Amino acid sequence: MIMIKIIKVGGAIIEDEKNLENLLSNFATIEGSKILVHGGGRTSSTLMKKLGMEPKMINGRRVTDQETLEIVSMVYAGINKKIVAKLQAAKINALGICGADGNAMKAKKRPPNPIDFGFVGDITKKDVDTQFIENQLKNKITLVFAPLTHDGKGNLLNTNADTVASTLAQAVQTIEDVQLLYVFEKPGLLRNADDDNSLITSFSNQDYRLALKQDFIHAGMHPKLKNAFDAVNDGVKEVCLCNIQNMTHLKQCTKITP
Amino acid sequence: MIMIKIIKVGGAIIEDEKNLENLLSNFATIEGSKILVHGGGRTSSTLMKKLGMEPKMINGRRVTDQETLEIVSMVYAGINKKIVAKLQAAKINALGICGADGNAMKAKKRPPNPIDFGFVGDITKKDVDTQFIENQLKNKITLVFAPLTHDGKGNLLNTNADTVASTLAQAVQTIEDVQLLYVFEKPGLLRNADDDNSLITSFSNQDYRLALKQDFIHAGMHPKLKNAFDAVNDGVKEVCLCNIQNMTHLKQCTKITP
Repeated sequence: MIMIKIIKVGGAIIEDEKNLENLLSNFATIEGSKILVHGGGRTSSTLMKKLGMEPKMINGRRVTDQETLEIVSMVYAGINKKIVAKLQAAKINALGICGADGNAMKAKKRPPNPIDFGFVGDITKKDVDTQFIENQLKNKITLVFAPLTHDGKGNLLNTNADTVASTLAQAVQTIEDVQLLYVFEKPGLLRNADDDNSLITSFSNQDYRLALKQDFIHAGMHPKLKNAFDAVNDGVKEVCLCNIQNMTHLKQCTKITP
Repeated sequence: MIMIKIIKVGGAIIEDEKNLENLLSNFATIEGSKILVHGGGRTSSTLMKKLGMEPKMINGRRVTDQETLEIVSMVYAGINKKIVAKLQAAKINALGICGADGNAMKAKKRPPNPIDFGFVGDITKKDVDTQFIENQLKNKITLVFAPLTHDGKGNLLNTNADTVASTLAQAVQTIEDVQLLYVFEKPGLLRNADDDNSLITSFSNQDYRLALKQDFIHAGMHPKLKNAFDAVNDGVKEVCLCNIQNMTHLKQCTKITP
């Protein structure tokens, strides 16, 4: 029996008021221990532009200098508190955390070579304090996780939310079996990104290798897939990609398999 | 024996990098259960001005409309995570929360008459979930509290940080005796605001009534004093006003007495 559900929710959902309400009302109906992991990259970029700052990206990844770190910490933490308040209204006793809280996830600052991404944290499952997380879940607390970690030297670090979810799943499966869901605007992995009816319902490592050769996977899907396979290959019981409508029953989804 | 220390720290300390380091290194040496309550009003106003918004104040109190709420939630939550990361570096296992987290502090939105302050929350000690707080403290977690509450209907509410500290003190004294400290840039209550040597070392309800008649109290001190007396009159064991240098030993401070 799967006991801990970890749900990573994409930016396009979080940053739209109606989608967020829809997500949270579905999330609220999930029984048992659960953790919601969110991002906030787009909101950060919007705020930076309003402040006359230019978001810096290299190969689609954010460069987090000191100024950018100030913005993303505020934005992610602000979204986090907003989600917690909404979950409380849905009678879910939520607690919003980042990796610094309770030392839940300590990271290593990414080395500046070959590319200096600034205040970005890399994590492995050993960096997760499962005891802290277990204590909260045991007290029937639902965790809401903002994608910030810390270096143990007083700095917050920006960390990819897909990776946070996968790493959490790998770590907390020592407590209970884990179901990891990547919930986003599509019904799952599509053979043709423009056709929602081209859903791939099951996708293995071998399928992935073949797909990479055939080059049909949409660029934006790679981080999600990499993190999903990292989890499943580490033994996480169930890993799926799905949309809001299917997150509670998984009638339609892409199941990631070893 | 006093077991829970609640320390409210003023904006002038939090918003200056050196003062903050100094505060946190002192705070880290305090033994036993402790809670740090912070504000962030000035940083919010600065960010609003950068975004071309005009902070609205009536009688020195912020009017928190929807737009302002978005800003203060981000700013307070961002400061909160920054403090937590710094405390982790000092080997204090901190957890940053607001009133929505763990339903720690549910508030009532202030009625719009006679003045509509917008998304502002009023609280009493009954609004504090002492069980959630006790569970964290029992697990040797140090709480860092951002002055946001929630209405139970999905909205965050802006709440005065001095009041948050006083209300927390009144509520958690059911768990253990409480020491409540208001730490700010002055050594305590001064007879003459410009003379640090005019420190009043003990100040009772009767002294307060007399002082109000004599009109020597600096306007900025009134919220702190009101909240300090609310706590002491509710039975909180020790309530003091002091600066960073004296927060651990209270050699110099203003002791608030019934």
